[in-house]
Amino acid sequence: MTIRKQIRAGIVGGTGYTGAELLRLLVRHPAVELTAVTSRSRAGMPLEEALPNLRGTTGLAFVPHDAPALRDCDVVFFATPHGTAMSAVPGLLEAGAKVIDLGADFRLTDADLWQRWYGAPHTCPELLDQVVYGLPEVNRDAIRDAALVANPGCYPTAVVLGLVPLLEQGRADLRGLIADAKSGASGAGRKAVEGLLYSELSDSFKAYGVAGHRHLPEIEQVLGRVAGRPVALTFVPHLVPMVRGLHATVYATLAAPDADVQAWFEQRYAGEPFVDVMPPGSHPETRAVKGSNTCRIAVHPLPGRDRVVVLSVIDNLVKGAAGQAVQNMNLMFALEEATGLEQIAMLP
Amino acid sequence: MTIRKQIRAGIVGGTGYTGAELLRLLVRHPAVELTAVTSRSRAGMPLEEALPNLRGTTGLAFVPHDAPALRDCDVVFFATPHGTAMSAVPGLLEAGAKVIDLGADFRLTDADLWQRWYGAPHTCPELLDQVVYGLPEVNRDAIRDAALVANPGCYPTAVVLGLVPLLEQGRADLRGLIADAKSGASGAGRKAVEGLLYSELSDSFKAYGVAGHRHLPEIEQVLGRVAGRPVALTFVPHLVPMVRGLHATVYATLAAPDADVQAWFEQRYAGEPFVDVMPPGSHPETRAVKGSNTCRIAVHPLPGRDRVVVLSVIDNLVKGAAGQAVQNMNLMFALEEATGLEQIAMLP
Amino acid sequence: MTIRKQIRAGIVGGTGYTGAELLRLLVRHPAVELTAVTSRSRAGMPLEEALPNLRGTTGLAFVPHDAPALRDCDVVFFATPHGTAMSAVPGLLEAGAKVIDLGADFRLTDADLWQRWYGAPHTCPELLDQVVYGLPEVNRDAIRDAALVANPGCYPTAVVLGLVPLLEQGRADLRGLIADAKSGASGAGRKAVEGLLYSELSDSFKAYGVAGHRHLPEIEQVLGRVAGRPVALTFVPHLVPMVRGLHATVYATLAAPDADVQAWFEQRYAGEPFVDVMPPGSHPETRAVKGSNTCRIAVHPLPGRDRVVVLSVIDNLVKGAAGQAVQNMNLMFALEEATGLEQIAMLP
Amino acid sequence: MTIRKQIRAGIVGGTGYTGAELLRLLVRHPAVELTAVTSRSRAGMPLEEALPNLRGTTGLAFVPHDAPALRDCDVVFFATPHGTAMSAVPGLLEAGAKVIDLGADFRLTDADLWQRWYGAPHTCPELLDQVVYGLPEVNRDAIRDAALVANPGCYPTAVVLGLVPLLEQGRADLRGLIADAKSGASGAGRKAVEGLLYSELSDSFKAYGVAGHRHLPEIEQVLGRVAGRPVALTFVPHLVPMVRGLHATVYATLAAPDADVQAWFEQRYAGEPFVDVMPPGSHPETRAVKGSNTCRIAVHPLPGRDRVVVLSVIDNLVKGAAGQAVQNMNLMFALEEATGLEQIAMLP
Repeated sequence: MTIRKQIRAGIVGGTGYTGAELLRLLVRHPAVELTAVTSRSRAGMPLEEALPNLRGTTGLAFVPHDAPALRDCDVVFFATPHGTAMSAVPGLLEAGAKVIDLGADFRLTDADLWQRWYGAPHTCPELLDQVVYGLPEVNRDAIRDAALVANPGCYPTAVVLGLVPLLEQGRADLRGLIADAKSGASGAGRKAVEGLLYSELSDSFKAYGVAGHRHLPEIEQVLGRVAGRPVALTFVPHLVPMVRGLHATVYATLAAPDADVQAWFEQRYAGEPFVDVMPPGSHPETRAVKGSNTCRIAVHPLPGRDRVVVLSVIDNLVKGAAGQAVQNMNLMFALEEATGLEQIAMLP
Repeated sequence: MTIRKQIRAGIVGGTGYTGAELLRLLVRHPAVELTAVTSRSRAGMPLEEALPNLRGTTGLAFVPHDAPALRDCDVVFFATPHGTAMSAVPGLLEAGAKVIDLGADFRLTDADLWQRWYGAPHTCPELLDQVVYGLPEVNRDAIRDAALVANPGCYPTAVVLGLVPLLEQGRADLRGLIADAKSGASGAGRKAVEGLLYSELSDSFKAYGVAGHRHLPEIEQVLGRVAGRPVALTFVPHLVPMVRGLHATVYATLAAPDADVQAWFEQRYAGEPFVDVMPPGSHPETRAVKGSNTCRIAVHPLPGRDRVVVLSVIDNLVKGAAGQAVQNMNLMFALEEATGLEQIAMLP
Repeated sequence: MTIRKQIRAGIVGGTGYTGAELLRLLVRHPAVELTAVTSRSRAGMPLEEALPNLRGTTGLAFVPHDAPALRDCDVVFFATPHGTAMSAVPGLLEAGAKVIDLGADFRLTDADLWQRWYGAPHTCPELLDQVVYGLPEVNRDAIRDAALVANPGCYPTAVVLGLVPLLEQGRADLRGLIADAKSGASGAGRKAVEGLLYSELSDSFKAYGVAGHRHLPEIEQVLGRVAGRPVALTFVPHLVPMVRGLHATVYATLAAPDADVQAWFEQRYAGEPFVDVMPPGSHPETRAVKGSNTCRIAVHPLPGRDRVVVLSVIDNLVKGAAGQAVQNMNLMFALEEATGLEQIAMLP
Repeated sequence: MTIRKQIRAGIVGGTGYTGAELLRLLVRHPAVELTAVTSRSRAGMPLEEALPNLRGTTGLAFVPHDAPALRDCDVVFFATPHGTAMSAVPGLLEAGAKVIDLGADFRLTDADLWQRWYGAPHTCPELLDQVVYGLPEVNRDAIRDAALVANPGCYPTAVVLGLVPLLEQGRADLRGLIADAKSGASGAGRKAVEGLLYSELSDSFKAYGVAGHRHLPEIEQVLGRVAGRPVALTFVPHLVPMVRGLHATVYATLAAPDADVQAWFEQRYAGEPFVDVMPPGSHPETRAVKGSNTCRIAVHPLPGRDRVVVLSVIDNLVKGAAGQAVQNMNLMFALEEATGLEQIAMLP
């Protein structure tokens, strides 16, 4: 018996790293039929020509961003820079498609805040009330019923999952949170800019965006909802000379130094298919999640101090982008949540 | 409908890179039940402790190399340094298990030649007559009936697949073949030696073993069989600062300069599930096969000269080791050849 | 006019990464004559055979660790694992040599603390009173007169230089300091262990030693001296897939949020030959100090918050080890402090 | 006594990798005063802002490509894409400056051939007679007297040095030469194109330009001059995931299989300051020349065959570009040939 391919899926922006990763996952997804993949610059080109890893797996060619086929999709994924999804989503929703935006257009629920960080007015603020933030571990039920899902950023995914149990327990100092985060280069996208060249990033390490990164308001928004009160985060992202992988080192101060924070995490994430709380004393490596949809977390309460250090790793292109989007789709279409996401991380 | 797990499989040597990759593939193989995975140094330890990418996927723990459970397996894979398989294979065959040796013990059919290259006498030369060399593109039918398969080395796989169509056409100069090959560091195994440290290999490139590499007699043996005459190969392996991937650049001199070598390759490999002959003018990248069982080949006849350059890439741990072993197992157990090997390469 | 080679220098442990880097610097140092370089395992072998970058620059061969030639040196560098220097230093001091220990034997001034972190009794606690901690930016005058210098660890160098101006101003909360530090693989030394293999570290990132790293008490000791009061640091080291480079991201809470911390740093390090305070808003890259003895620092007071983030980068083998040792030697022998340390970082 | 800075030097194109490397070398060169460094896009910006490794070493700012200061230089280096030098060199020569072009404009002496490979007519073919090809090991005397030097490409440098002794002996088959060459990414320059992004090149390996690379006619031209007869080379370049380093594996067929080729190389390069013939059986690593001007060569005659394999490594930015340019300048101004080029390779 073969599973009927029942979900017609489209991807807007199929040549960036997020789009390419969506393709890797959806081409093998047992319930999905890819019907339209767009590219601004490569319309007409076979997918496998731009993405040689797909050779022999699909006969599709890229179509333009405004291809009518998108309107016949059951679900459309946007893997585009901010600003693109906003202009097309209202029409697609009207046409009956569900939408999962892997970009930033619908992540902030406050249109003014969005404008402040992205430098342009939001063009469909009326949708911000109905968007569901697609972090299943926090919003699972709402995602099931959503027509429009804002897929979280990669940093927010790793940082938030590393803090939720602390915030839900109400024991962390909400003004003193620090997330020192490190990402591989694919997180910056497939942009032909000098700063992302091999010879610029290789064998080097640096911080960036200390003065303000667009993922900061997103993280603070989600943490604030979880905590029920405003949260102030110090967030410093860094660029690691590797392709995939994201490691968040989160520092929190607790009211009571001796609490069993390990148990908080284990209980909170028991039953979660894609969050793995490691044994005490562990140090997760990013390679142990490479290509998989898992977030691995280790919790280190510092002996004799009121501080806890949480280590949280994901593959930024999977749990931090395309994998989480597929997880959301599975929920939105009442499939088993892990369908098409059973890949084991590639190690070494 | 779920496929019944009908093949009980064991792995001898589950902590090296080849063993780890076998585990990644077999844990998700729909027709395999892993029943015994051995480790000399880690018997008793849960697999997922040594290989964190497996966390949550298997409850198995390592058993010793001589665990009785191996004798109840339908198939046993050896992912061990040379010398180990030789001592255990006769007993396993007698117990009724089929054996696929990913090491070097059964790759050379001449026991004297084996001793010359491996520095010790072969302890079961009587088996060398019945071993089948497990390169499906050359030996498919024999593999189906084999009880003992010698899984090819990584260099031989890429080099031989890059030369078979030329040799079968009988048009290449058999004394002048050159294979300039480049491998990622995982090809050297998980050995704690200074020369394989990160700080020794990173951001550097070198040749090694110019005076003689153990894969040379193996390649010459297979090429000789294909050509029907002895073949002399100049083989220079190099070490690339990357984890996975193998690129063979093969140089051959042809009798006739203008022959349509592209067509020879396309016809020879038409229908092969794991050999992809790319369009003329292509340059395959190793990353386009990373994690997949595919060998991608590009053929470059040099205009106006009697020389052809063939570029052949594989993932040394998949088509060059564990994936090819699973492909062989599928053939030996009359499964669809690609079962459990549908992974798309991870790009980027 | 050529400078007379007046300082006879010896190196104990010339084959590790720190020793190799000392050789790179000292072979070209205009005032140094290398007279003895030891190796436990390679005595008798020409240096250039073990270190091919030295081919053609020196005719020396390694001598044993206890070679008498060491006693005739004006200065002896120890580039050895902890425990080695302790046993030989008293004799060398007696013989009139000055000693610079790049290992850990003399970094902690409290013998009990040393034993707690290094697991063995200190064998010459009587020397701990006269040791000078070789961080010139803090201890310059004492170093000039020292016979025995403890060269700082790589993490302490970057972290302490990133905190000194804050502590000297007396404005930072001494209980809440955090150093999230990231080091290239060469910081772990040239040890043939599985965890340091290329295929283990490449394209991955992880924290380690969260529960306690030997550099923590060293940093707290120095910071405490600078602050004049005990300091509690949360220190989390991470391993970056690169060879050289160390990046410390330091978080401090200030009493007054709007202080001009940029000016504190600029004034404190004005005139320092090897500390470079970058313009506001900068993000130093480790590659911008690769091969050089410079520590580059950027200071980021967070607007509207009482927190400052300091980014501090060094080459762990130069300013974090061999370069700083040469800087100390220059001071101890009344040479111009930058002699032999004028290398410009290699970029790219 | 300080050496008087007597040579006023200019650089056209100071922000690319070759220009940056020239700056690293010339800022510390004892006989050079940098007086003009140009940049098309960054005129007015301090050098140290674009190249942070230079912070504190120079107060210069970039000037436009046509800055008058260039005409007052004693020597002008062009580190520009092809086409730029051609248009400016005649005027500079007239003004009395010597010129070293690190680009491709003057490497081919046949203007028609140049047009065929570079796709545009050569604009000053009258200069092609007086250009000297700046490979000191072949052309030292002519370089001393030259006003205009064409600095060799990186591939030609490594390949030609690996073949000169064979060709001068007249024993190699000139129709069957093969150079399988591998370069780090910096060899492709600092161009913001997608194909050179970190996430495209990292952890992957590929050939490129098999059908024809612009360095091929350059190599054949030089080899032909050395051999005194036309030479046909098969040249396949590859891209290695590393920043610096170039490894040429050269294959030649000899008339007599047992000749002592090791001796040919040792004798030919005896006394050469920057060519190091390693002992028999060696495998040079690119890291052993990183940052240095040395070409290291190992010669492997294959036992029992008439074939020799030569391994030749350089740092593509030093001996393959900026270092060789400085070596040429030293010759042109009657300085000691190694002045300013004494850097020891950085290992690790």
